[in-house]
Amino acid sequence: MGVLSAFKRMVVGRRLANAQLGQTLLPKRLALPVFASDALSSVAYAIDEILITLSLAGMVGFLFSWEIGVAVGVVVAVVVASYRQTVHAYPSGGGDYEVASDNLGRFAGLTVASALMVDYVLTVAVSVSAGIINAKAIAPFLQGHEAWAAAGVIVVIALINLRGVRESGAAFAWPTYIFMFSMLSMIAIGLFRILALGHDLQSETADLIVMRPDGMEELAGWALIAILARAFSSGCAALTGVEAISNGVPAFKPPKSRNAATVLAMLGALAITMLLGIVALANLTRVHLIDELTGTYYINEAGETINSAATTVIGQLGRVVFMDWFQPGFYILITATMLVLFLAANTAFNGFPSLASILAKDGYLPRQLHTRGDRLAYSNGITMLAIAAAALVLVFDASVTALIQLYVVGVFISFTLGQVGMIRYWTRALSRERDKKARARMQRSRAINTVGAALTGTVLIVVLVSKFTHGAYLALVAMAAVFAFMLAISNHYLAVAQEVALTPDSDRALPSRVRGVVLVQRVNLPTLKAIAFARATRPTTLAAVTVAVDDDEVERILDEWESEDFGIPLKVIASPYREITGPFIRYVSELRTENPRDVVSVYIPEYVVGHWWEQLLHNQTALLIRTRLHFMPGVMVTSVPYQLRSSGRAKAIAKKASAPSRRMGR
Amino acid sequence: MGVLSAFKRMVVGRRLANAQLGQTLLPKRLALPVFASDALSSVAYAIDEILITLSLAGMVGFLFSWEIGVAVGVVVAVVVASYRQTVHAYPSGGGDYEVASDNLGRFAGLTVASALMVDYVLTVAVSVSAGIINAKAIAPFLQGHEAWAAAGVIVVIALINLRGVRESGAAFAWPTYIFMFSMLSMIAIGLFRILALGHDLQSETADLIVMRPDGMEELAGWALIAILARAFSSGCAALTGVEAISNGVPAFKPPKSRNAATVLAMLGALAITMLLGIVALANLTRVHLIDELTGTYYINEAGETINSAATTVIGQLGRVVFMDWFQPGFYILITATMLVLFLAANTAFNGFPSLASILAKDGYLPRQLHTRGDRLAYSNGITMLAIAAAALVLVFDASVTALIQLYVVGVFISFTLGQVGMIRYWTRALSRERDKKARARMQRSRAINTVGAALTGTVLIVVLVSKFTHGAYLALVAMAAVFAFMLAISNHYLAVAQEVALTPDSDRALPSRVRGVVLVQRVNLPTLKAIAFARATRPTTLAAVTVAVDDDEVERILDEWESEDFGIPLKVIASPYREITGPFIRYVSELRTENPRDVVSVYIPEYVVGHWWEQLLHNQTALLIRTRLHFMPGVMVTSVPYQLRSSGRAKAIAKKASAPSRRMGR
Repeated sequence: MGVLSAFKRMVVGRRLANAQLGQTLLPKRLALPVFASDALSSVAYAIDEILITLSLAGMVGFLFSWEIGVAVGVVVAVVVASYRQTVHAYPSGGGDYEVASDNLGRFAGLTVASALMVDYVLTVAVSVSAGIINAKAIAPFLQGHEAWAAAGVIVVIALINLRGVRESGAAFAWPTYIFMFSMLSMIAIGLFRILALGHDLQSETADLIVMRPDGMEELAGWALIAILARAFSSGCAALTGVEAISNGVPAFKPPKSRNAATVLAMLGALAITMLLGIVALANLTRVHLIDELTGTYYINEAGETINSAATTVIGQLGRVVFMDWFQPGFYILITATMLVLFLAANTAFNGFPSLASILAKDGYLPRQLHTRGDRLAYSNGITMLAIAAAALVLVFDASVTALIQLYVVGVFISFTLGQVGMIRYWTRALSRERDKKARARMQRSRAINTVGAALTGTVLIVVLVSKFTHGAYLALVAMAAVFAFMLAISNHYLAVAQEVALTPDSDRALPSRVRGVVLVQRVNLPTLKAIAFARATRPTTLAAVTVAVDDDEVERILDEWESEDFGIPLKVIASPYREITGPFIRYVSELRTENPRDVVSVYIPEYVVGHWWEQLLHNQTALLIRTRLHFMPGVMVTSVPYQLRSSGRAKAIAKKASAPSRRMGR
Repeated sequence: MGVLSAFKRMVVGRRLANAQLGQTLLPKRLALPVFASDALSSVAYAIDEILITLSLAGMVGFLFSWEIGVAVGVVVAVVVASYRQTVHAYPSGGGDYEVASDNLGRFAGLTVASALMVDYVLTVAVSVSAGIINAKAIAPFLQGHEAWAAAGVIVVIALINLRGVRESGAAFAWPTYIFMFSMLSMIAIGLFRILALGHDLQSETADLIVMRPDGMEELAGWALIAILARAFSSGCAALTGVEAISNGVPAFKPPKSRNAATVLAMLGALAITMLLGIVALANLTRVHLIDELTGTYYINEAGETINSAATTVIGQLGRVVFMDWFQPGFYILITATMLVLFLAANTAFNGFPSLASILAKDGYLPRQLHTRGDRLAYSNGITMLAIAAAALVLVFDASVTALIQLYVVGVFISFTLGQVGMIRYWTRALSRERDKKARARMQRSRAINTVGAALTGTVLIVVLVSKFTHGAYLALVAMAAVFAFMLAISNHYLAVAQEVALTPDSDRALPSRVRGVVLVQRVNLPTLKAIAFARATRPTTLAAVTVAVDDDEVERILDEWESEDFGIPLKVIASPYREITGPFIRYVSELRTENPRDVVSVYIPEYVVGHWWEQLLHNQTALLIRTRLHFMPGVMVTSVPYQLRSSGRAKAIAKKASAPSRRMGR
């Protein structure tokens, strides 16, 4: 094994035997952390973004954090309830895409798919950026290098994913459980210390006064309402990751749907608890954030202006709750938060190729992406996602506040269409169902989905209105581009399928005879092999043909031909122009014209070599001839490969490239 | 015809029928200007470079211009006489490469070839740069934009060459004849006015005093001799282009050799006349140049320092001879000089692909470059040459003085090896020849080539010593790289040829039976066609095989299969991993193992589409399978193309790409 392949195995990993496939199904205790990383980690940055947006209204804004937290919590509850219906109705893992396609038609499905594709990229960018910002609470040296650090993390996650998801499944569990435990501990201990023990816990930003960029202290009226709407929209980022479960149902151990619904409920409860717990604690300890991008700033007690943003809400709370009492708790909390945010990015790396595979099956993406066994296709998806996310992070300087303006739109487009689709689904199901108990259950589900659709639709409008000019339009443009791209592919496949469909009128006549033609460029072993193989097929006629590019060479070939006993004559085609392709094509074309009911079978000896640059030195004429013969009806082109000794190395590479990957079954 | 193909035809031109080939042979009156552009135009910049180099010795340097002009003239005369022998002995057009390979062996030939390849690039760069510098005499706005202007001219010449050389052949004649006429007129009129009429013609730089960069006025002793040696080396640039005729003999009308020798003699006489005439005139009108790169400068009569270079020698002479007498003469002279220099670059665009073709035939370059009919191969050569030359021009800021340091080395390596080869050639010929008269002729030829070899070898040493550190080493490095590259290709081809050679021990056994396998991915017209073609070849056994990637799809395929009457059973291969390639390869491999003496023939239906991006959407699985099957001995892979309607467009493009080009036969 060469150095390169050793390195490749180290990075990409050993291939899994097919028999190991069953092992990749997730029990609940693993499924919870796998999906929790995405769903719960978003709570961490959602609260930051709520407070940052509220700072635009000056000090008065923070008074509303409580109401906005509750509003987001209500949305989480409703969405979780809605998706519990979806996972029961659609256990196949297509998620909102399948729901929308099935019930609302091709364009709705494609809209959801476009939104999800763009959102996967944003999930990676936002989660990793948030992880880096959190890390700054314990690693201040990251200050000023956020974008490159985030891009580096994305590359590392992509490499881990190229190794396959199985290891990650187990690797997920620990940090996520530690994150949940330390987060809930912080909330419980903090509230207990303040409310029960009466400790006066004040955050590091408690006594800083936040000023608006125009120097005014407060906003009121419509301007305030607009800020509140944007704060709510940003807070809705807490909902991202919930829909991942509806895509991941097939990865659960049976009973799949029930297990998925249970995990969904657990996640919902955890998310709401964390959200409200942190908001409560942030209010009690008087956490104030500023928006560096828009230019709000602090004034301290000495009346000095401070322009640099404080650390994150979780960083401030962790410090005030743990640092005078149990210092390791703070470090564990921050580390776990950071890791969970990176793992959330990892979830997108699982979801993206799965979605691509489903879309490929439906003919919206190149078909070869469907056959998941081909590691190459998955690798391409992972690489594309990593490049797009890294580019976003570098362009937006890893600013969560900037990226989040693009983020939530796609999630709520997908939510809304998914819920509307579910209403339609239940209505249809009801029209077929006669059993009373079942009907009652369906009607209850439909009611839940109706509430879900109404609420998510409303949120979508709020998000669109409040964020459109702040960046949401960029996300919409990207989605439209993806939509148009996939539609073009789909239309192409449909047109081709129609063109090649077998109809009763299709010509089923068998060609009567085969005219064999062997292309001879030199008299050597590859040519000998091609002639032997051609003769083995016993064509009606068989001719060996060479094109006279060079008089001396033709004479040598004829001499060598005669000294061998090939049993067939060698036909020499004149080519005063030292050209091979044209005269040969004309010869085949004439053969076709003379025998219109026969098939012409052209045998081309090909060299199989070991290095790509050797490939450039051989077979170029064969390639050109094959390409042009492909345009001629009634001609088939047979490559007779001759394996040179150096081909052994290339064989191993080709085998590895198309080896089945070890992605889990979702 | 679409807009794109209309544009392409406009740029690349209509293809020539084979019958037109004979027309491209050149009569003398066309051959003279075609080759003169290269050989004579170099006189223009050679004189500039002589004077610029002499300026390094201060005012005393210019006193030696006369001697150096004569020395260069002698070299021209000897080299022309030597090459007249070569064109008689080698009418096939291989030039020095063929002479060196034949008589001195593979490495000498390869050395000449490397030198010539590098020199072609330099010819383009130097000629176009010199053309632009000349153009500045009438178009001062080019000042400061020389590099980009030169790169632009190179692109235009490359485009013209992609159209084929026939038009250029005729287009060559006029500017070159005008150049010769106006140059000779200038010399004659100038000398007549000064010597016969006694006019006091003084160039614009006559009264400027040239100072060395160190402020000293004069050099003496060894330093002066070193400067003179470099001035002579630069002046030898006048010889470039002479060897082009020895490469171009096949392009002449019969009697080819005699006509080529005549044109060579005419060119030599013209070059020497121009060279000495211009030197005489420059001396009489007291032309002084400075070297901007090294930092020599002028001091005018007022004692002021002038750092910017004056216009070229031809520009100054043309102005002083014509401007007070017949002003259009000046403009015609400068325009013709510029055009001829550009045409000289064009000569390299002809020579480069011809040389590449010869080298490809001998296995030093990828073999497909040999078949000249393929326009694609020629286009690649032209494009490569244009890119390399444009890069050189941009890197060296279109400075002829800088580029010329790299230039002359290759020419004289090629001269010297060519002449030494000719000595060997005559010695061999003499050993066979008994006729007295013929022997006398041969001995005379050998004497001429011996003088040529001695002189060019001496010049090569002078050039290497005087220019090595000034840039010649770069040319040598480039030549060594080209040498190593071509040697590697040659070794590869030789190793392969040995591996595939037919020997008495080669296995000539015919395979006994053919096992046909049709890959089925869908039941449609392409599959129907593949099965029909496969059945037409009447294999011993024939199986249709599909890989079960998706259970629903397999069921649909089986249903459709049954409703059609294909006459062969469909075998379904399990693939729990949703993978196609691996299981199919394993199936074929098992078939091979079970029937080791039989050939397996795999039939793959392929879609032939119209756009490259459509190609990305189809046949990817087929491509992967074909690549992996190529590594399996005893398997042949047959593509059964199905032409979709959109393929009509692509067919036209494919035809055009491989259409014979209209390059003339040299």
